[in-house]
Amino acid sequence: MPDMRILAAQINPTIGDLEGNSRKVIEALQRAKGGDVVFFPELTLCGYFPDDLLLDRTFIDAMGKKLEEIRPKTKGLFAVIGLARWNESGKEKPLYNSAAVFADGKLLGFKNKTLLPTYDVFDERRYFEPGGEEPIWEYQGKRIAVTICEDVWQHAGMLDGYTDYRRDPIQDLKEKRPDLLLNLSGSPYYYKRKETRVSVFQTAAKTLKCPVIFCNQVGANDQLVFDGHSLFIDEKGQFVRMAKGFVEEDFWIDLHQKTAEKHKEDPIGDLYSALVLGVRDYFHKQGFQKALVGLSGGIDSALVTCIAKDALGAKNVLAVTLPSRYSSRGSVDDSKALVKALGVELREISIETVFKQYLNLLEPMFQGKSVDETEENLQSRIRGMILMAFSNKFGHILLNTGNKSEMAMGYCTLYGDMAGGLGVLHDVTKLQIYALAKHVGVIPEAIIKKVPSAELRENQTDFDTLPPYEVLDPIIEDYIEKRLSVEEIAQKRGHSSEFVRGIVHKIHRNEYKRRQAPISIRVTEKAFSKGRVVPIVQKWQ
Amino acid sequence: MPDMRILAAQINPTIGDLEGNSRKVIEALQRAKGGDVVFFPELTLCGYFPDDLLLDRTFIDAMGKKLEEIRPKTKGLFAVIGLARWNESGKEKPLYNSAAVFADGKLLGFKNKTLLPTYDVFDERRYFEPGGEEPIWEYQGKRIAVTICEDVWQHAGMLDGYTDYRRDPIQDLKEKRPDLLLNLSGSPYYYKRKETRVSVFQTAAKTLKCPVIFCNQVGANDQLVFDGHSLFIDEKGQFVRMAKGFVEEDFWIDLHQKTAEKHKEDPIGDLYSALVLGVRDYFHKQGFQKALVGLSGGIDSALVTCIAKDALGAKNVLAVTLPSRYSSRGSVDDSKALVKALGVELREISIETVFKQYLNLLEPMFQGKSVDETEENLQSRIRGMILMAFSNKFGHILLNTGNKSEMAMGYCTLYGDMAGGLGVLHDVTKLQIYALAKHVGVIPEAIIKKVPSAELRENQTDFDTLPPYEVLDPIIEDYIEKRLSVEEIAQKRGHSSEFVRGIVHKIHRNEYKRRQAPISIRVTEKAFSKGRVVPIVQKWQ
Repeated sequence: MPDMRILAAQINPTIGDLEGNSRKVIEALQRAKGGDVVFFPELTLCGYFPDDLLLDRTFIDAMGKKLEEIRPKTKGLFAVIGLARWNESGKEKPLYNSAAVFADGKLLGFKNKTLLPTYDVFDERRYFEPGGEEPIWEYQGKRIAVTICEDVWQHAGMLDGYTDYRRDPIQDLKEKRPDLLLNLSGSPYYYKRKETRVSVFQTAAKTLKCPVIFCNQVGANDQLVFDGHSLFIDEKGQFVRMAKGFVEEDFWIDLHQKTAEKHKEDPIGDLYSALVLGVRDYFHKQGFQKALVGLSGGIDSALVTCIAKDALGAKNVLAVTLPSRYSSRGSVDDSKALVKALGVELREISIETVFKQYLNLLEPMFQGKSVDETEENLQSRIRGMILMAFSNKFGHILLNTGNKSEMAMGYCTLYGDMAGGLGVLHDVTKLQIYALAKHVGVIPEAIIKKVPSAELRENQTDFDTLPPYEVLDPIIEDYIEKRLSVEEIAQKRGHSSEFVRGIVHKIHRNEYKRRQAPISIRVTEKAFSKGRVVPIVQKWQ
Repeated sequence: MPDMRILAAQINPTIGDLEGNSRKVIEALQRAKGGDVVFFPELTLCGYFPDDLLLDRTFIDAMGKKLEEIRPKTKGLFAVIGLARWNESGKEKPLYNSAAVFADGKLLGFKNKTLLPTYDVFDERRYFEPGGEEPIWEYQGKRIAVTICEDVWQHAGMLDGYTDYRRDPIQDLKEKRPDLLLNLSGSPYYYKRKETRVSVFQTAAKTLKCPVIFCNQVGANDQLVFDGHSLFIDEKGQFVRMAKGFVEEDFWIDLHQKTAEKHKEDPIGDLYSALVLGVRDYFHKQGFQKALVGLSGGIDSALVTCIAKDALGAKNVLAVTLPSRYSSRGSVDDSKALVKALGVELREISIETVFKQYLNLLEPMFQGKSVDETEENLQSRIRGMILMAFSNKFGHILLNTGNKSEMAMGYCTLYGDMAGGLGVLHDVTKLQIYALAKHVGVIPEAIIKKVPSAELRENQTDFDTLPPYEVLDPIIEDYIEKRLSVEEIAQKRGHSSEFVRGIVHKIHRNEYKRRQAPISIRVTEKAFSKGRVVPIVQKWQ
């Protein structure tokens, strides 16, 4: 069998940027000329996932035109490029999630995605008709099979736990004896997902007894972060190489390579990289440069400032600390120490005079009513307002610093600490935040060690309202990510059902708040917002 | 053929309230004893639509138990009850959207929904496997066919314009010659939809040459309002009767009735009723009684106050007017005239002192910068904060008063006039608001006639920023609801492509704002938020 060099072009497309994405494809085709085969991530031309842009006919037509422009550039290569295109039969859905297969400047045909995920963050049946065939193309004497993302996952039984497709494209391909399997993917990152993918592609390689190459999208699009980490598995199902994570890469594969390369496992490092990429792409893909962070002296805002600095550069980050009568002096000093270490500018504005003015104004209306969360929320909202005034005046985008534990419990103020353009940590529990803070290193010990507090009243701590995070976070993970029932969680964690039910009720009762949160970066199997569709008004939980 | 009396029980279920919904079913079964057949809306036991509650196994099991409790109560009747239940084959999705068919206390079997809408606000493929059979049941010598909502719509070709199912249950039923077709539905209201439904069910009746009865859910669940308006069409396809809209009703049908009953067309009246029901159910189904409205003196907040009064009662509505240096005296006086006419309490709080305090506080930071939208947003946000302080202190839910034209253009302030628990008018354009204001009658002419203004700077009007609503609203409708392209709209409306493209760009550029809006009541074919899934970060539009 002749040698074959393959380029898996791990690119970072922008949603709907047909012009820019096509340019990336054409440039990669140029670079691929030294080899034989080049292929790209799923839906290469429009990026994964364009949502209802797919319902715009002119969008689909424009993608077809781009493909025609690209065709001649595939001269001398076997090239596979993802796109959405018309299903000419018109039944049942008008589009295919497709891959165009070219050889030496000629279009050989298309592979249409057979398995269309319609669960979690995926909604492909809204737009696409499933393909049904698993074609094989011959090139340089090799029989090459092409699959698209999910097509490979049924075979490994690694779906969402609810879906079990009737077809299994890998099984269907087996009798066709391919010499090589290519997989174009838009497979989003979540915590510790890399290992799962290796095992999925190993299973396919073992069944087909041929090498498998996985080319994954990299980059963040709205809530989803794609980590890249493209893969090469040999015909024995052995791991050979993995592309870098969280960056574009020309992942060159020599099919004859047998020696497995080491890749180091660093789940917290990956999580941090995902958050940095989530922030960077949200900003840069929209043409924004500058971020604003409200620095409370607590660990969450400290971590967000580090992430913002790594995503955008220190000079593009402005931190604002907004002390009140309840802020400890330590909080302001700790914020100063942090920004000094990061090289980030800090402004300080006391909210005290405005807070007093509100209290005076409302006093006649609130007579006879005792002080309660209203006054706490006022402080949080004054901070939100001042930060938004900075954002409006200077054009910085406000980063939200809330975490998943708070978002779950509704331990946050609408229009106050929930303000911002992007929820950087909404899918990161408090316990993970401690791990990330240690990982980044620069956060002062005083910030990491202080008892978490909203500092909205005298001597307040989070634990006036919430159970310890060591208790709370595993329950949130069990209920939201693992989808265990109240009884299962109670048993697993050794709590009473009443205790767990109380937390689950609180999660549901605060759904209305989360609906008004900014979009956030998804880094777990199940984030709030995208991928989790629950009614606000309901009487089940 | 013997006479047959049928009860279409047009009930208002609460999502996930298996206990309460089952009680409604059992009570209706009692009332049905005078007749022969009784049936209910789609997904009777859990309400339409429970979203990801369906992924909770204990929820599905509990529904099955409720069905078993109900079974004996069907003695003496043919009864059809909707529920979600396990697909025992487990392929491809674990559930059916199903209808249990009982005769005289015995379970005869199930009809599984064949056509599963996965477009617009519907996402049924996320949970359900399509049924494939169209069974017929015999009762009192009649062959009765059961369909579920969408099953009937393919035959009439009245889908979303993109979906075209491979199956047509009405065609499949034709050769089985049913004597009666029952349809259990959860068919949401939108403007002027009633006529479409009549024609869909007429088409089915004509093909099957048998009477068709449509039993629709009534009530609002989160964003969706179900209008009821159940229907009876005779075997010639002629309209006979329509149930009331927006209320629960025992819709009794005598199959021998031939004379068509008149129903008056009042699209604006229906729209108003939909908004009232949307507010009432959002509140009452959650156990809330009291609403708060920020009354600006403009038409939008005036209309929301009327809706709130009709939904909740005058004594449960508190209006707050929050004048600033830019508020015309007329605005406050007009607000007073309105609340007097409605019998609603009004409070007045000037935002001036707090506004000055913010300006003083920010002045040193904003030196050298000219006054811009920052200062306008400050005023809007102070109002939002004071309203939320009232909400927090007294437990009233704040109603948001923004309209669809503003939401489209982003002519609104995050955390300011975008605050609230429910966007009452987010799916109502400004032109429709004028029509509704005339419909309700009580709104003072001065409010209706004044030039629309946010009153956030001297002599401001909406038209400093927006085109006239007579120009803007049709473009919004064409682009969002009718999904026309920029070029099609330009041609249809006689504008330049550049002008229309500018508006379309602005709609997309403000997607980030709408994502942080409260949920809203959907009353058109295509609302922002639910049913419209568009990326924030994209370069297509």
